[in-house]
Amino acid sequence: MFKGLSAFPLTPLVGGEVDEKSFLALIENLAGAGVDSIGALGSTGSYAYLTREQRFHTTQQAVSAAAGIPVITSIGSVSAEEVLRLAEDAQKAGVSGVLLAPVSYQPLTHDEVFSLYERVSRELSVPLCIYDNVATTRFEFTDELLIALSRLNAIGSIKLGDLPADRDAARERVRRLKARVSDGVTIGISGDAQSAAGLIAGCDVWYSVLGGLFPHYALRLTEAALRQDESETHELDVVLAPLWAYYRRHGSLRVIATVAEILGVVSMPCLPFPLQTLSGKERDALQQTLESLHFLA
Amino acid sequence: MFKGLSAFPLTPLVGGEVDEKSFLALIENLAGAGVDSIGALGSTGSYAYLTREQRFHTTQQAVSAAAGIPVITSIGSVSAEEVLRLAEDAQKAGVSGVLLAPVSYQPLTHDEVFSLYERVSRELSVPLCIYDNVATTRFEFTDELLIALSRLNAIGSIKLGDLPADRDAARERVRRLKARVSDGVTIGISGDAQSAAGLIAGCDVWYSVLGGLFPHYALRLTEAALRQDESETHELDVVLAPLWAYYRRHGSLRVIATVAEILGVVSMPCLPFPLQTLSGKERDALQQTLESLHFLA
Repeated sequence: MFKGLSAFPLTPLVGGEVDEKSFLALIENLAGAGVDSIGALGSTGSYAYLTREQRFHTTQQAVSAAAGIPVITSIGSVSAEEVLRLAEDAQKAGVSGVLLAPVSYQPLTHDEVFSLYERVSRELSVPLCIYDNVATTRFEFTDELLIALSRLNAIGSIKLGDLPADRDAARERVRRLKARVSDGVTIGISGDAQSAAGLIAGCDVWYSVLGGLFPHYALRLTEAALRQDESETHELDVVLAPLWAYYRRHGSLRVIATVAEILGVVSMPCLPFPLQTLSGKERDALQQTLESLHFLA
Repeated sequence: MFKGLSAFPLTPLVGGEVDEKSFLALIENLAGAGVDSIGALGSTGSYAYLTREQRFHTTQQAVSAAAGIPVITSIGSVSAEEVLRLAEDAQKAGVSGVLLAPVSYQPLTHDEVFSLYERVSRELSVPLCIYDNVATTRFEFTDELLIALSRLNAIGSIKLGDLPADRDAARERVRRLKARVSDGVTIGISGDAQSAAGLIAGCDVWYSVLGGLFPHYALRLTEAALRQDESETHELDVVLAPLWAYYRRHGSLRVIATVAEILGVVSMPCLPFPLQTLSGKERDALQQTLESLHFLA
């Protein structure tokens, strides 16, 4: 399941409540395109801002609208007690896998992170993807820790954060990880701007923000990269550079949410307060960039 | 209220539930010592790991056990909707003030942080202390933002994070802040290791982890520093250097929680899973250090 294109849709909000109609349309768009899995309520899906009830209900809806495509959901929370409750909820909601970032308030030690995954792993009957996202968790995984964690029963995949920018160094890191993690654990790449490079470097799956809104294009890019067609991959990726520049400035969530607002597939504002989509000149400029990327839709 | 010694006690946990008996004994110790205020459910009080119900109930208990000493509580949460609910709860529980750090999952922009405090400020009838804690929030306040926020109606104090290590630079920063923040807004220092220096530099209040367990000693230090007795302040502070070295290595929470376990005032383990107190040789060494600091108790 943790392979190919895993598409992460927004969870559009209106006044703190999930805009179910828009959310379901996003899921149906992904199901129609035939993505490999749907990461409902990932970081892009604002999981961390929703109540337990909202997370349960929205995950159920995603599973139902996904028409058989595996749904993954995040079970992260500052409180480990809550993580365990969310793990139970996710399984009841019918997910095929869960995603867990080491979210915390106090910065965690490596031992603490290991014991968190170990405890959660014991409660799961679906596979878990380890979510390495230093921007939101401030926790820096080492490869040694990832490899140790991969031996826990429930672990099915690792969603890598930063890869080395150097192409050979990236390939070498992925090669060494794949050689040392437990059998069957896939290696995924996140951070759209580095994902083409990550797949070319040997990653098995793209955990994709772009794919949550533009699954057809993201599938083409994923397929080209997975068959190691470097020239087509480069061609499909390089034209997106202007979008990645916005990501770097504002974070991928604010950018993809603004794009969704511009396209009219979600209402505005769609992010959980106080997060803001782009406004004024920045928004106008993004709209122009988007026009030059008309092939995405 | 936001002046002198504000003491931050632990919220000891047993199996995820608040150990009420130990918690109340900690509060009574602070009330008996006559601290200026009690920061119940601060970072040291593990607020971020507790449910809304636990926070409400524990805050009520703190107010009741504080015997008239003002109680401050944290209303921080990843979700701003939850922050608003917690603000209401805290006021119902009878607090005299609230503390708010810009907790988030996605790193926040300055505009977003401003709009968060502005919205929360509108809902409050008790004063709010802005909590600058980059280690837990990753948000870096500028002095310009702090000054702009100080003009919001509800703001009563600013709990500073890092001060310049250079003595003159620290004094100059505090002087400029005090000259520019709204009238009546006090400037406080946190981070025990720099607190003596912060008070000597002109801060009005010590938001103190040490004071949550050792209020008598922390009061002596606070009083010496507030009357600008540099020599006595230095004498009282310098002997604590070994303790600050543990703070730097493990974070103040793990250290003060270990100290409380060693003293037997809380059960072990007292922190929310997966946070761990010190163990093995590190714990033995801290116990020895503590013996040399017998004057604290």
